[in-house]
Amino acid sequence: MSDYNFRLDLEVRDYECDMQGVVNNAVYQNYLEHTRHEFIKQLGLDFAELTRQGIILVVVRAELDYKKSLQSGDRFWIGTRLQRESRIRFAFYQDIYRYPDNELILQAKVIGTSLNDKGRPKLPKQIEAALAG
Amino acid sequence: MSDYNFRLDLEVRDYECDMQGVVNNAVYQNYLEHTRHEFIKQLGLDFAELTRQGIILVVVRAELDYKKSLQSGDRFWIGTRLQRESRIRFAFYQDIYRYPDNELILQAKVIGTSLNDKGRPKLPKQIEAALAG
Amino acid sequence: MSDYNFRLDLEVRDYECDMQGVVNNAVYQNYLEHTRHEFIKQLGLDFAELTRQGIILVVVRAELDYKKSLQSGDRFWIGTRLQRESRIRFAFYQDIYRYPDNELILQAKVIGTSLNDKGRPKLPKQIEAALAG
Amino acid sequence: MSDYNFRLDLEVRDYECDMQGVVNNAVYQNYLEHTRHEFIKQLGLDFAELTRQGIILVVVRAELDYKKSLQSGDRFWIGTRLQRESRIRFAFYQDIYRYPDNELILQAKVIGTSLNDKGRPKLPKQIEAALAG
Repeated sequence: MSDYNFRLDLEVRDYECDMQGVVNNAVYQNYLEHTRHEFIKQLGLDFAELTRQGIILVVVRAELDYKKSLQSGDRFWIGTRLQRESRIRFAFYQDIYRYPDNELILQAKVIGTSLNDKGRPKLPKQIEAALAG
Repeated sequence: MSDYNFRLDLEVRDYECDMQGVVNNAVYQNYLEHTRHEFIKQLGLDFAELTRQGIILVVVRAELDYKKSLQSGDRFWIGTRLQRESRIRFAFYQDIYRYPDNELILQAKVIGTSLNDKGRPKLPKQIEAALAG
Repeated sequence: MSDYNFRLDLEVRDYECDMQGVVNNAVYQNYLEHTRHEFIKQLGLDFAELTRQGIILVVVRAELDYKKSLQSGDRFWIGTRLQRESRIRFAFYQDIYRYPDNELILQAKVIGTSLNDKGRPKLPKQIEAALAG
Repeated sequence: MSDYNFRLDLEVRDYECDMQGVVNNAVYQNYLEHTRHEFIKQLGLDFAELTRQGIILVVVRAELDYKKSLQSGDRFWIGTRLQRESRIRFAFYQDIYRYPDNELILQAKVIGTSLNDKGRPKLPKQIEAALAG
């Protein structure tokens, strides 16, 4: 846990499972996005508020390694670490672990940037501060 | 609360919101389904396990009254009451209230039945017991 | 078909199916919404454009009768009929039929209204015209 | 187009857009999965039928480069190329282009394998044949 800046507990919902009886691949991106938004909320950044202000946080690349499947009833946690990727890009390293055995389910690296209302890359100061921290 | 057999707390996730900036209409059915599955789990019935056994719980009718919209960041609770509708049908009365003001967001009535592996309506004994209780 | 103002052909996508191997109940609302938006586009109304203008089309009530399930690979069509419900409310009668046997899958009645930027009910003139037609 | 084994035309549905008014990142994985399933259907492989037979096609890694956003009303096509990645792994190279300007929206590489009912990697002969082709 010491490796992560933020950690969120979630639980599989049955509508997230597909005909194979496991969580559908696309749903993991929902989990990851929700965790990122909760994380930046803790940094003082609200995604909806940013959107209203014309500051658009965008994902430019996602890498997802599917290790094991989550199933109906599974509880899990998502660890997230933020790291600077370049002057205008930042990376979220996000790992999903199943409870109670801490089995690794998915490893992801999600690279983002943020655009101001002129469409130019511009990091909010709260993200700059978190990257500097 | 005394009117409900079961109550679940949830929170809006940003990916559930559409371009109007509010939770999309279809997503409320996800919330309601998840709540029903958590409720029947408390009755000793696991939806995934039932599916594997060939017992199919089906929704035959849903009525949803949309009163107000949920938005990004909203926390809410879903109250659920189970009631017999006919010999082989049961109804879930499900209401969604926003925290902290308990504003009513949605009222729903979801009628279901269950089919055995021959496709015949047959209620699991746990549901019969809950309806009798 | 003569009963419908609009008809749309769609096809089940596997990610729309849940662990029971059939289209999840909530997904039908996606199908219905998409059909309504395509229908009003034909009336000269673009949902996204309306949203940008501050005109909010809202669903106030949905009734869905689930008759049969759609499965992986199924093709189907959705017939939609628009009818005035009251001075400020309109109803979409929407039925889903499976190809090629025209088996009835779902019957729905979706009641909507539209709100102007002051939050007051106000029907766009294109909908008034369609209701008058 | 000559670079792709398969091509599918789709269109943005409004419920796929999030509060930023663009298609949500996770939805692209739905588009890609649907395209892969349509592609393998053309190879004589039905995903649902394979699942019933206990043959599980799994994604082990996905890389997605988000170039531009799709919006409400956009039509687009997905080109897919299949290539052997290792003895038991295959890769789908999948690119999304917007109509009518053929603007590149997303580039993806999705690596999969297939497991037999004993959980061992085993490629269906139709995929072997396509990889050999």
